Amino acid sequence: MSSYQNDLFLRAAKGEQVERPPVWIMRQAGRVLPQYRALRANYAGFREFMFDPAAAAEATIQPIDELGVDAAIIFSDILVIPEAMGLVYDMVEKRGPIFPKTIKSAYDVKSLVAGEEAAAKLDYVYEALRITKRDLNNRVPLIGFAGAPWTIFAYMVEGSGSKTFSKAKEFLYRYPEISHQLLDRITDTTIAYLKQKVANGADLIQIFDSWAGILSPAQYREFATQYIAKICTAITNVPVTVFSKGAWFALDELAQLDCQVLGLDWNIEPAEARKRVGDKVVLQGNMDPCFLYADAATVKKGVQDMIKSFGPKHIVNLGHGLYPDIPLDNVRVFVDTVKEYNY
Amino acid sequence: MSSYQNDLFLRAAKGEQVERPPVWIMRQAGRVLPQYRALRANYAGFREFMFDPAAAAEATIQPIDELGVDAAIIFSDILVIPEAMGLVYDMVEKRGPIFPKTIKSAYDVKSLVAGEEAAAKLDYVYEALRITKRDLNNRVPLIGFAGAPWTIFAYMVEGSGSKTFSKAKEFLYRYPEISHQLLDRITDTTIAYLKQKVANGADLIQIFDSWAGILSPAQYREFATQYIAKICTAITNVPVTVFSKGAWFALDELAQLDCQVLGLDWNIEPAEARKRVGDKVVLQGNMDPCFLYADAATVKKGVQDMIKSFGPKHIVNLGHGLYPDIPLDNVRVFVDTVKEYNY
Repeated sequence: MSSYQNDLFLRAAKGEQVERPPVWIMRQAGRVLPQYRALRANYAGFREFMFDPAAAAEATIQPIDELGVDAAIIFSDILVIPEAMGLVYDMVEKRGPIFPKTIKSAYDVKSLVAGEEAAAKLDYVYEALRITKRDLNNRVPLIGFAGAPWTIFAYMVEGSGSKTFSKAKEFLYRYPEISHQLLDRITDTTIAYLKQKVANGADLIQIFDSWAGILSPAQYREFATQYIAKICTAITNVPVTVFSKGAWFALDELAQLDCQVLGLDWNIEPAEARKRVGDKVVLQGNMDPCFLYADAATVKKGVQDMIKSFGPKHIVNLGHGLYPDIPLDNVRVFVDTVKEYNY
Repeated sequence: MSSYQNDLFLRAAKGEQVERPPVWIMRQAGRVLPQYRALRANYAGFREFMFDPAAAAEATIQPIDELGVDAAIIFSDILVIPEAMGLVYDMVEKRGPIFPKTIKSAYDVKSLVAGEEAAAKLDYVYEALRITKRDLNNRVPLIGFAGAPWTIFAYMVEGSGSKTFSKAKEFLYRYPEISHQLLDRITDTTIAYLKQKVANGADLIQIFDSWAGILSPAQYREFATQYIAKICTAITNVPVTVFSKGAWFALDELAQLDCQVLGLDWNIEPAEARKRVGDKVVLQGNMDPCFLYADAATVKKGVQDMIKSFGPKHIVNLGHGLYPDIPLDNVRVFVDTVKEYNY
């Protein structure tokens, strides 16, 4: 009883047999589209843009019009969660996010706002979802997302991006109990937030654990997987995708969670991933974004090879977000090759 | 017929049965030692320091005196190779290496100096080895090292450190033939350089593929493993260690090379690594450097657990270099716990 003109993405995410794999691209909203750059030029910065629900909705829909992908993903940022909890951040050109205030103690953790109270502060995101749903007019499903608790924790303690996130990891090693308290509060907030996203029209939820790959398997088990598990269990009614970048070692455990799709980066070959996760989940990914710097014929062949390697239960995507300088023509080749494919 | 007072490291690297695992630490020379900081304060910058063979030798020996590790590793930098080939670099505080000139074309590759002619420019490194050997006075073996060809290529094309090395990877995807020409020339230079290191006293050679983990398995096979293989085959008389950070997916292929030891980062559990590589090679690693931020009792227990998990054919190390703010007392606990251990 799906009401979408194109419901391929949702059918595939639920594990149904489909005629070809669906395709969407991480960072499809923004970055490579000239239409996005034109729209974005009217705003002082990334945050001003994100705070305007009409602008976020327009950026969300642009790749549907321009690239013909099978799903939209709401234009937003994973760091709205720390902000709603009390840590305001700034987005600095070429440096990324900076948090002037970070978490240093149990007192800091207790001082945060959390759960529904925090999630209630993000109405501009829900409004963007409502506008998007209206303007998408049932063409394709809409993906809502959040950062995984460990990744959000990493920013809240480190205060910025980092190659090693050694401050955040030091916190885990030195203060495991306070770490769990913070992860609990982030998890509660994320669940309340994602429930609101579903209530406002998200058809699938993707959880991004961008910094999964810097933890050891033991730490990932203790500080990451169990919180992702809580979110997966709490989100009912819509499928859930978990994308733990770099955490190849955790794929078997993630596959046991109450999620339908696992995202993959390009470090793992499809056959190896399938061997690790079994038959239950759908796999999403996993071409190296840099592959799109190659010539068009190579990209086309690469996409076809990837689809063959994955076989069924596959959603096509890159293994990470688009880079801003990736040629738009090759992004089109990527999408079009998938759409011409027949299993 | 080893002439070392302590030859545990070499015996273990050759796969011999030993009474306890040997221990050394990546970045043991420099960074955490107050003696290093005092010595280094006499020099304008990292490069001035590195260019002085007497200073490099002193920094190399400091951790033997201060920490009691079972091997010394020559104080130097992997980027001396691009420099000898014609790309001078600068080391910028808090930013890392910057190459004003980078490789952009086949012409640039042809213009480089390579092989023995390039290696001959690095006499200050060989002199540092000679002084170190003299002053070590056969207390422990000395490790010589080089970057793996892909990692050196990455810097020569990208021109600096990077989270994604997307320029270097773009080059691989767009110009595979020129890439192979450059990798060939880097490999020839590295072999000539490492032979000189062995001739001047290095007892074991470690190859660092620091950026292995950003390539896909297919790219690693095409652009990395075969060049490491050439180096392994060319280095005779001493054992070779290959440390391809992040390349868990290549461990089985690396284990087939003519090398004796494989380095591991902390993303892989010892049992999984052993399963992948079989019985031939010795494994080196792999504690998360951030583990050393924990309290001393936790560090001690962690080291003991790690040794038990690895079992025999193991050299203790971290999974990456020491960070400058890691407490020196915990570095001592790390080393001492290994030295008190009995299989």
